Amino acid sequence: MATRPNGNEPISEMTTGRLSVYLRCLTYLESANKLTVSSAELADRFHLNSAQIRKDLACFGEFGTRGVGYNVAHLKDALVHELGLDRMRKILIVGAGNLGMALADYRGFNERGFHIVGMVDIDPEKFGKTSRSGIPVLPWDQMPQLVRRNDVEIGILAVGTDSAQDAYDGLVDAGVRAILNFAPVQMRSHRGVKVRSVDLRINLESLSFYLKSVEDGIALE
Amino acid sequence: MATRPNGNEPISEMTTGRLSVYLRCLTYLESANKLTVSSAELADRFHLNSAQIRKDLACFGEFGTRGVGYNVAHLKDALVHELGLDRMRKILIVGAGNLGMALADYRGFNERGFHIVGMVDIDPEKFGKTSRSGIPVLPWDQMPQLVRRNDVEIGILAVGTDSAQDAYDGLVDAGVRAILNFAPVQMRSHRGVKVRSVDLRINLESLSFYLKSVEDGIALE
Repeated sequence: MATRPNGNEPISEMTTGRLSVYLRCLTYLESANKLTVSSAELADRFHLNSAQIRKDLACFGEFGTRGVGYNVAHLKDALVHELGLDRMRKILIVGAGNLGMALADYRGFNERGFHIVGMVDIDPEKFGKTSRSGIPVLPWDQMPQLVRRNDVEIGILAVGTDSAQDAYDGLVDAGVRAILNFAPVQMRSHRGVKVRSVDLRINLESLSFYLKSVEDGIALE
Repeated sequence: MATRPNGNEPISEMTTGRLSVYLRCLTYLESANKLTVSSAELADRFHLNSAQIRKDLACFGEFGTRGVGYNVAHLKDALVHELGLDRMRKILIVGAGNLGMALADYRGFNERGFHIVGMVDIDPEKFGKTSRSGIPVLPWDQMPQLVRRNDVEIGILAVGTDSAQDAYDGLVDAGVRAILNFAPVQMRSHRGVKVRSVDLRINLESLSFYLKSVEDGIALE
């Protein structure tokens, strides 16, 4: 949780997630040549909560004008800056199996503020191969040099449960300070290193909840 | 958004997500032979908010005893039931590329309430292949029979942007009522069908926010 430099309001991880959602909305509105948007309109178009939107964006200073709404381009730029997306962050993927290959080509992972420098793996048969979009597979042994030479800031763990801790420790030793973990394992953490674990099953459970609500005859929006 | 049968409190999608998180916590505590847990302890151990926990779980009746806390096993069972995970839901994956293969073997997608019946693809070269864990690839043409014969309730879209809408429409025609979409595309929706789109980039943006906070010298938890 970070504290704003200009105030006392902490910004939680959940707020950060919503800022990303707002950024997507604004990017869409900009592509549709919309110049201003009100919190009510944002809420309505994208199924969000207008009070929450005003609260979240209040931290970011005066982007809203009463009766007119937010300037789309200005607010978008502010969110890009706030999320640290106005500079390039380098990414290294550990594991070149199906998941690593899929992530290497995943839209949004290699653009607008992020650049994947490569995948590393311990399997010599994979060395020299590339993902469909051309991301190369390199030996795990070269990881430290790759991280240092390319100023890699983010490591993605696309390895199995057994290898996750070693991969994590190795990345941290090499200087990586942010980890996106896809391995279903609770890891011993390092101070000063941010680990974000992705649990895709939560999405299935949400769909199950919807299906149960229908079965139970409960009104759904 | 669903309304509870026994009250007026609507359960939002965000609450559903938190229920999944609580379920993970309780499953872990049960495996550690813990019998009861307080909301404060849950909050502390898993970096959650205790007031939010009490609010979320208040809908679920009397599982908490003042001074003792929640009965771990009872609360876990209630959440499993609430999320509709106490019956088996069948899943079909559309697209047998790297992403489809990775999802077919993803831990948590083929257990505890979910069963993947197969992948379908339009590429004949993939027919008859299987994922590492043995999920077979079948022709897209057989999708309607597969859905009906297996009572498939959930479809996962692991296809490219160009094919997503057709795959979605086809699944809905065949009777699928819940879709987990990994294609980065806004689809024309069908009434009575729940689509949940996964945007993995949000996780990277959260890490970028963390890295920026460090750069800015802002205190981080």
